[in-house]
Amino acid sequence: MSIKKWSELDIIKIFSAQSGLKSHPDLIKGIGDDCAIFSTAGNRHWVTTTDILVEDVHFNRTWHPPRLLGRKSIAVNLSDIAAMGADAHFALVSVVLPDNIDKEWVSSWSSGLLEILDEFDCLLIGGDTVKGSQLVINVVVLGSVDKDQAILRSTAQENETIYVSGMLGSAAAGLEICRNPSLFSSLDHQICEPLIEQHLNPTPELRLGKVLRKSGIVGSMQDLSDGLATDLAHICAQSSVGAEIDAFSLPGHENLDLVCEQLDTEPTTMKISGGEDYRLVFTVRQNMDEQLQALQKNEPLGPIYPIGRTVKGQGVKLITKDGKSSDISFKGYQHRSG
Amino acid sequence: MSIKKWSELDIIKIFSAQSGLKSHPDLIKGIGDDCAIFSTAGNRHWVTTTDILVEDVHFNRTWHPPRLLGRKSIAVNLSDIAAMGADAHFALVSVVLPDNIDKEWVSSWSSGLLEILDEFDCLLIGGDTVKGSQLVINVVVLGSVDKDQAILRSTAQENETIYVSGMLGSAAAGLEICRNPSLFSSLDHQICEPLIEQHLNPTPELRLGKVLRKSGIVGSMQDLSDGLATDLAHICAQSSVGAEIDAFSLPGHENLDLVCEQLDTEPTTMKISGGEDYRLVFTVRQNMDEQLQALQKNEPLGPIYPIGRTVKGQGVKLITKDGKSSDISFKGYQHRSG
Repeated sequence: MSIKKWSELDIIKIFSAQSGLKSHPDLIKGIGDDCAIFSTAGNRHWVTTTDILVEDVHFNRTWHPPRLLGRKSIAVNLSDIAAMGADAHFALVSVVLPDNIDKEWVSSWSSGLLEILDEFDCLLIGGDTVKGSQLVINVVVLGSVDKDQAILRSTAQENETIYVSGMLGSAAAGLEICRNPSLFSSLDHQICEPLIEQHLNPTPELRLGKVLRKSGIVGSMQDLSDGLATDLAHICAQSSVGAEIDAFSLPGHENLDLVCEQLDTEPTTMKISGGEDYRLVFTVRQNMDEQLQALQKNEPLGPIYPIGRTVKGQGVKLITKDGKSSDISFKGYQHRSG
Repeated sequence: MSIKKWSELDIIKIFSAQSGLKSHPDLIKGIGDDCAIFSTAGNRHWVTTTDILVEDVHFNRTWHPPRLLGRKSIAVNLSDIAAMGADAHFALVSVVLPDNIDKEWVSSWSSGLLEILDEFDCLLIGGDTVKGSQLVINVVVLGSVDKDQAILRSTAQENETIYVSGMLGSAAAGLEICRNPSLFSSLDHQICEPLIEQHLNPTPELRLGKVLRKSGIVGSMQDLSDGLATDLAHICAQSSVGAEIDAFSLPGHENLDLVCEQLDTEPTTMKISGGEDYRLVFTVRQNMDEQLQALQKNEPLGPIYPIGRTVKGQGVKLITKDGKSSDISFKGYQHRSG
């Protein structure tokens, strides 16, 4: 008997429908951004986000050390908080643990999780634990931001410069190395390591997100979880603008070309479609790029790369060196760690 | 090779350790109550809680209609909010869906979930969806309560009367009927139905929780999820008091005895150890029982039953008609819906 398949989009549609119809005096922003935003008395808004990580979909225990998986479980949520320009305060962690996981694994995983919470002054305030057949980790993070100051996906305008806050495609390349170790046995370990590290242990850009938010020059922002092609398409769709990305300007790790050669993949494809870099993509208001440069001089923010611009229209277009343009909207990453 | 098994308690200990060591200026109450409590500016405190429900552990799709499972996914969290005397405002729902679930199931489940959120003026503000091998539902609810007014587990004193807000053991009996349908084929459907309904579709006691909190006569409160013997033991442990429960006073549904006979179980055992009734257990300050009665007259609260008292000492003791006493602390319910 064939069954009518559901898709993630069906569920998001069902859920968003209620969000669209109903309102709440304290709700500033519901479903549709990196975080939801709600108001409390005083001069702060609260933000919250959740991610559910499932074994063999989002991660693979074979190559993911438990401590780093603990870190990443939190990092992917902190990255959403960073994309609002907010501070993280509290976390709730629920976990479904299969019987074939031992105490030592649980202990390392927890230590990684608590370690990164500590690093970002975030406190674990609740959770739930249960046995099950598949390892599942659900994290919720709560944070806050100055009232009305959260940076949204929906507020980009035309003629803004688009920036990313680090190399693209590193995590995706790292994942491919972990998946196909035999392919890389001829490569020096040092070639592969920084890319694997980006896959296993991404750093959420909370400090950068906050500095950018405070600068007042940022039009829109989101974190890179599903790949530039998809994440930037969200900004375009929600802001009713188009985006042009210059292929030659996309930053990649110096070892990416070598790894892509081994994988028989174009580095550009890896950079636009590879997910989970957890860098920030943001737009800077027209004629304010110099202020960004000044900001970088005064307060080193780490590498930031201009990669294109917002334009009148819709969708994300990739412009190659020969001037050819192709639509890459939503051609990002589908999670699959099997 | 034998592996060192983890237990839920190990994980709670690891997690609570950080909570115990660290503080946050906005955190009022971390791990250990029905909800965590955090402060924002103004005259409200925010509360938050999370529950993760796993197929074949917390529910069984064979007999749990999707709409009612959607309702229950939310209800078990709203019940924690009720136990603080708080109002619910926002929910985040994450779900891991296996491939053998069809669109119709998802649609019914979502409609149940949105329906109960509506009934309690709670808005869905975020979530996550992913495919996996086992159905997992994680819900977080955020609510608020007047500043410093949340009712805790840790504030019971000696010589308070202990009350429960409804029949005990109904949901556990309903679960047993669903598990062993052949055992009950000789019983009239009408005998079984109210008990099954309590298992499939519990009602969170948000209105009652709030009225009790506002009355100012309640010493401590918690919801009944793991069975009276365990839930009341939490109040005792956290408040450093003991509890005496009178077996004869434990309220049960009029059909419970008949069902227990079929199961060859003592009704009292079902009432003290059966989980998931999602009623409230609370203590009323010494000499304030008359005020509770007056409250009930002015503002009908549904049935409320006195079942015992807090005493000097520790642990929960069950006193039978012949005056015998036995320690039932933490002898509650272990989730198993297989």
